[in-house]
Amino acid sequence: MQTSQLAAIPNKGAAVWLTGLPAAGKTTVALAVQEALHNSGRLACVIDGDELRRGLCSDLGFTEKDRTENVRRAAEMAVYLSKQGIITIIALISPMRLQRSSARSLHGEAGIPFMEVWVSTPIEVCRQRDPKGLYNRYNQGNLHGLTGMDDPYEPPDCPDLVLPTDTMTISEAVDAVMAMLHKSGIL
Amino acid sequence: MQTSQLAAIPNKGAAVWLTGLPAAGKTTVALAVQEALHNSGRLACVIDGDELRRGLCSDLGFTEKDRTENVRRAAEMAVYLSKQGIITIIALISPMRLQRSSARSLHGEAGIPFMEVWVSTPIEVCRQRDPKGLYNRYNQGNLHGLTGMDDPYEPPDCPDLVLPTDTMTISEAVDAVMAMLHKSGIL
Repeated sequence: MQTSQLAAIPNKGAAVWLTGLPAAGKTTVALAVQEALHNSGRLACVIDGDELRRGLCSDLGFTEKDRTENVRRAAEMAVYLSKQGIITIIALISPMRLQRSSARSLHGEAGIPFMEVWVSTPIEVCRQRDPKGLYNRYNQGNLHGLTGMDDPYEPPDCPDLVLPTDTMTISEAVDAVMAMLHKSGIL
Repeated sequence: MQTSQLAAIPNKGAAVWLTGLPAAGKTTVALAVQEALHNSGRLACVIDGDELRRGLCSDLGFTEKDRTENVRRAAEMAVYLSKQGIITIIALISPMRLQRSSARSLHGEAGIPFMEVWVSTPIEVCRQRDPKGLYNRYNQGNLHGLTGMDDPYEPPDCPDLVLPTDTMTISEAVDAVMAMLHKSGIL
């Protein structure tokens, strides 16, 4: 039954995993990619770190253990959705290489294509943007454990795509993601 | 941006929450409803208790606390998906009224329609079906904490729909769910 259901939906599931510093532009890119996919008639769903923190992962804190569990749940949710033919776009700091490689493995075991996209905006630009005031709160001593400042961020060693949103427009970023999906046979 | 995305997808999110004993037929009904929705061109996603246990909730056990957390995560996942215009069909024992009313509240706060469907197959029929051998393992003393046997199941007080799968076909059950969704203005 599962097969015929998926056959009814002209869509191959996959995961586009956006990693990067706070304020790098992950959510903005994710929503724009989702819109492009919807406009192409594809099923697409954004899994956003901030939203997860308010809902599914509201029981978790910011210790390394809890951050790893946060990434695990995002990955499990992505696998679950991809299995149903949905392209998931994950916007999640996911600071550590090991967390992201675990996410990749989870997808691999399920036969789901997984593309790691590094939203590589430099921290100086992220600090200037600061839409949520995180860097400001950190500077004032009111926030600890901010990734990129007093908490580590490990850039991807070998990302499938790099999006420096300080030197490219959102539209160019979307085009690059869509081109990657085409090249990978997802679209 | 979110609004225009959803407008591009001709679908209103909602949750169809199937509760009932083990082997009551929840997953079977859920997959058949999903197929019917897909065939109608609607976005639909099944959130299945057994699959959650293997993935998103693999860190949880079967204490009352863990069962409640299991239901909470399923509800959060359903809300998240429904917000993106997807109709979610949740197949989850969710044995306690309080768990299900919490799930309903989470949806209500997000403005997502929530329909509680009691898959009311009597335990005698569930024990005969026993596709996963749970009741058999219980009878042999190899399983403890089986809902409906040595763990409680609280039937819904006021379900939106009752599906006695011992006296109705899957096709009739699907028709009943689709009629409910039409009546509620979801379809």
